[in-house]
Amino acid sequence: MARNIYLKMKSLEQARELLFSRFDWGNMLGSERVDVSDGVGRVLAEPVYAAISSPGYHGSAMDGIAVRAKQTFAASDSHPLELAVGSEAVFVNTGEALPPGMDAVIMIERVQTLDDQRIRIEAPAFPWQHVRRVGEDIVATEMMFARHHVLRPTCVGALIAGGVLEVAVKRRPRVLVIPSGPELVDPRSKRLDELKPGEIIEFNSAILGAMVVENGGRFVRHPGVPDDQDLIAKTIADAVSGDYDAVLVIGGSSAGSHDFTRAAVASVGEVLVHGVTVMPGKPTVLGAVNERLVVGIPGYPVSAIVCFDQFVAPALAHMLGLPERLRQRTTAVVNRKIASKLGMEEFIRVRLGRVGERLVAAPLARGAGTVTSFAEADGLVRIGAELEGVNPFEPVTVELLRDPVELETNLVAVGSHDMCLDVLADLLRAGGRSATLSSTNVGSLGGLMAVRGGTCHLAGTHLLDPSDGSYNTAAIQRYLPDTPVRLVHLVRRQQGLMVAQGNPRNITGFEDLTRADVSFVNRQGGSGTRVLLDFELGRCGIDPGAIVGYDQIEFTHMAVAVAVQSGAADTGLGIGAAAKALGLDFIGVAWESYDLVIPEAHFDSPGIRALLAVIRSEAFAERVASLGGYDTSEAGEIR
Amino acid sequence: MARNIYLKMKSLEQARELLFSRFDWGNMLGSERVDVSDGVGRVLAEPVYAAISSPGYHGSAMDGIAVRAKQTFAASDSHPLELAVGSEAVFVNTGEALPPGMDAVIMIERVQTLDDQRIRIEAPAFPWQHVRRVGEDIVATEMMFARHHVLRPTCVGALIAGGVLEVAVKRRPRVLVIPSGPELVDPRSKRLDELKPGEIIEFNSAILGAMVVENGGRFVRHPGVPDDQDLIAKTIADAVSGDYDAVLVIGGSSAGSHDFTRAAVASVGEVLVHGVTVMPGKPTVLGAVNERLVVGIPGYPVSAIVCFDQFVAPALAHMLGLPERLRQRTTAVVNRKIASKLGMEEFIRVRLGRVGERLVAAPLARGAGTVTSFAEADGLVRIGAELEGVNPFEPVTVELLRDPVELETNLVAVGSHDMCLDVLADLLRAGGRSATLSSTNVGSLGGLMAVRGGTCHLAGTHLLDPSDGSYNTAAIQRYLPDTPVRLVHLVRRQQGLMVAQGNPRNITGFEDLTRADVSFVNRQGGSGTRVLLDFELGRCGIDPGAIVGYDQIEFTHMAVAVAVQSGAADTGLGIGAAAKALGLDFIGVAWESYDLVIPEAHFDSPGIRALLAVIRSEAFAERVASLGGYDTSEAGEIR
Repeated sequence: MARNIYLKMKSLEQARELLFSRFDWGNMLGSERVDVSDGVGRVLAEPVYAAISSPGYHGSAMDGIAVRAKQTFAASDSHPLELAVGSEAVFVNTGEALPPGMDAVIMIERVQTLDDQRIRIEAPAFPWQHVRRVGEDIVATEMMFARHHVLRPTCVGALIAGGVLEVAVKRRPRVLVIPSGPELVDPRSKRLDELKPGEIIEFNSAILGAMVVENGGRFVRHPGVPDDQDLIAKTIADAVSGDYDAVLVIGGSSAGSHDFTRAAVASVGEVLVHGVTVMPGKPTVLGAVNERLVVGIPGYPVSAIVCFDQFVAPALAHMLGLPERLRQRTTAVVNRKIASKLGMEEFIRVRLGRVGERLVAAPLARGAGTVTSFAEADGLVRIGAELEGVNPFEPVTVELLRDPVELETNLVAVGSHDMCLDVLADLLRAGGRSATLSSTNVGSLGGLMAVRGGTCHLAGTHLLDPSDGSYNTAAIQRYLPDTPVRLVHLVRRQQGLMVAQGNPRNITGFEDLTRADVSFVNRQGGSGTRVLLDFELGRCGIDPGAIVGYDQIEFTHMAVAVAVQSGAADTGLGIGAAAKALGLDFIGVAWESYDLVIPEAHFDSPGIRALLAVIRSEAFAERVASLGGYDTSEAGEIR
Repeated sequence: MARNIYLKMKSLEQARELLFSRFDWGNMLGSERVDVSDGVGRVLAEPVYAAISSPGYHGSAMDGIAVRAKQTFAASDSHPLELAVGSEAVFVNTGEALPPGMDAVIMIERVQTLDDQRIRIEAPAFPWQHVRRVGEDIVATEMMFARHHVLRPTCVGALIAGGVLEVAVKRRPRVLVIPSGPELVDPRSKRLDELKPGEIIEFNSAILGAMVVENGGRFVRHPGVPDDQDLIAKTIADAVSGDYDAVLVIGGSSAGSHDFTRAAVASVGEVLVHGVTVMPGKPTVLGAVNERLVVGIPGYPVSAIVCFDQFVAPALAHMLGLPERLRQRTTAVVNRKIASKLGMEEFIRVRLGRVGERLVAAPLARGAGTVTSFAEADGLVRIGAELEGVNPFEPVTVELLRDPVELETNLVAVGSHDMCLDVLADLLRAGGRSATLSSTNVGSLGGLMAVRGGTCHLAGTHLLDPSDGSYNTAAIQRYLPDTPVRLVHLVRRQQGLMVAQGNPRNITGFEDLTRADVSFVNRQGGSGTRVLLDFELGRCGIDPGAIVGYDQIEFTHMAVAVAVQSGAADTGLGIGAAAKALGLDFIGVAWESYDLVIPEAHFDSPGIRALLAVIRSEAFAERVASLGGYDTSEAGEIR
């Protein structure tokens, strides 16, 4: 098979330097004139000078009388002064022009009206008191904003006040986004339930297009092109000789036998970089064709986002004359060990929350295909190429993807996952103004360890005590002897064996798991479901070693359900709601108690109070009832 | 004259509580369905569940061969295993579906191709290695996002991957903005040079409209309405019985004889608040008409912005189901004393910059009419109603109006202002990627004091030493004996007496200033121009007390020029460029040296290096030459 090779890979820093020094960024875009009211968010192409002064006349800053200050100097408490209305004193409202020659205003509360003709004052006015003078805010001809200033709503007001109704702004960069690859299906071209194995909904262009817009550009999505070097090359060449300032080819940027982006760029222009020592994002192609930017974007969505973020977003900023938008950074502690590959700079997506004094970072799924890991991320942690990872509780620098103020109200839930947590998160948001709930799934025991480590506000747990069949209290005594916590009951839920619809293997209980024709999918060690399984196997005298797939693990009930649905396994232990969600049959084996362990230190916080109110609400009970397999009759009780 | 009165004024906190508890915010807006690609920035009206799993099939994560793992267990270095292509091993590219029954992928680099029929491997594959399993990222039916989640570009990708092509989002709140007042001129209705005294360009609606959009709403600008209570009431009543969720009436919200907003709201609905103890922003009316929000917005632009920010922006957030957008806060030291009125909560607009370790806040103009103070502000400092002000160097909490990362590259210039500083600011921005220059004008001596206090990176100064006619070195020795600084020459510039075109008072020199028919406008004490004036008056034996207007002060050359142009004074001392800019005549009296004092501690910083490069550039010399009255032949020399 024909295979390409990477040119010598570059570090992220080297690749960025090669790219950013290659083009005359400042002169790539022209300018266009827009109405200032349409200018919010646009970048000034030229400095702007005031056309008129503001105020444009000497105006009263108060309701009162306009006077000549020097005619009032004799006024005092003991010697009030009378002035003739019309010639010596003129009533003015706020904003009205002073009559010619008058230079001060006395506020109406300090004026005695004697009759239609005369008023009396008891204090002098000093020159220009209560007067807004010409040019007090803006002086005609002065520079109001330097070029490359980004207009805000208040700038628009200032410009109009300065008589500037149109401004020259940088044209928006035009970006063509070309998805490539035979496996891609346009989401609008086909019913989603007709997708065949091997077909992938093309969604990268929607992400990158929205990121182009977010970074001040416009984008056009080109129809998908097949893996054909000449066709890709021609599409690029046409785009850069036409309207486009940049071209992004998604997919085919790696060094496989079906990857043609590098060769296509090379055939019509110059390849600056192929391959960057960054993860995700390694298979990146940076090129120049007709002095325009061409980027080969990796096909995995997380890689695509990192590539855009590191190369395309700053390129757009440079075109617009803006500094690269640097994310705000802060320090957090990671809640568990993160391994990383030496020689690769790695971007880890994390959830963030303030637990006590510390900002805690919980790593999300690592795979380059997990677009949800970016959609759910609050921040990015970079692990340098020279590091093999980060230890638990080690402080790391986090680049924030969200407003740091929002993170302060994040409730960090770590532990066993249950769909009721999603319901809680939704109902909390429905309240609108209080806390948000952000869950990371590490199993029941992992949740208790997080409580012990002080890296969460609450932990969902359903740990059976095999000695008496009780739930959670024994585990708390054992694993959290020195951590004061409250145990809040959330729900009872039914665990059972999920099987394909119609139960084709005719599974009726744990005894069937050792059959040679039955494959099982397990949960990870430490999860409550795993403890329950081992407890039941022990009671039945079943050897785990005899179960095909006992070592095959998944991390959530839904993942187990999917494994069964897809035929990857014949059965797995999990909750009824997951089986119901995917239309699986379900053989109930036990009811268990799913509770929340909440450290005493956080129990009286506004976030937890809001959470408890939701747990005890009718709305929660109704929503959970519709999931099936739950009992909420004691939800919110403290145990 | 008929005058209204304020109802009992409310504190900001009371007024907000009255407003936010008054409406059923969560049910004000309906929802609408949008294509997810149009959904960035929109707020989910309902939780969203995945329609399909992603990946939707077991796919290869590598280029390689798909196998059944259990058929490979015997492979090792010493006992390589051969597999039949087609039945036991199938070549797959990244993303391709695994053939039915196969459950692992061996990467192509680990496969020896023997011939068309056979391949050889030297290590076993474990089940599911290099396979992206069904549902690895998204499981059909799981909740992807809770309601009220704001969609980001990556969320759009995740939704499409989960088979969700349309989502229900909160309808955008519709806001009608009604400017009121007879003095207002629509900027598009009239040539700006035909404005008469008393006419004001209406720009508040452009600011508030843009702020509505920024906060997720849509706005319509109603044509200006006159000060007519019945007409205003009818306009409000029509709007709230029709399409609008909120109505903002700008102007007429105070308690003057021409202020009708309160009465208009009362006539068709309920006035919740009239008058808030906040400055600017006191004359605010909060009302409810037909269960819709009606706000009487003060007519002064800064008051209008504060009112919108404190009441309307959070109201829009509540309608959308979002928490109020709280600005990020940080601590800064103020660079000078700020006085504040007891009993009023005051919002001070400040410029910010990091000088050494400290973030320094420089207050901008205080007046409610200075829209530029908001346009230029980096942050807001609140001074509580119980405080009389803030002392110099006192730490204060700042609410940030800009990305804090951008502030880090702000060069803080404090001192005498010169138009060359605007040119420098523009040319620095033209470079695009380095520093920004932010100038506050406090006069030459004020600049030296800022250097001494460590609250600026550079100070523009032109202080004459009366003993020898030299500039700046003596002042530095006197005022900065213990502060190591560099003195960088910027320009020589001509000072002179500005007079109206044609010099109607026939002024020829300082001797004319004592004439009874000549009024003067002075500069503030400590400014270099003031020192020059006093020096020249001393040389000529002129008594300052004999000059009409000697105590009348302005803070910039342009303000002095405007005073002369507008007839507020007959003459003032200032630079030729300011006279030229406003078409004034100019009687030159001296050339002076305008220099930059730069603390040694900042001299080698990237920002100052970039500034010096600009000062020494051709572009700077050319731009300054076009201003007139400058000599840049020695620009950038270190003295």
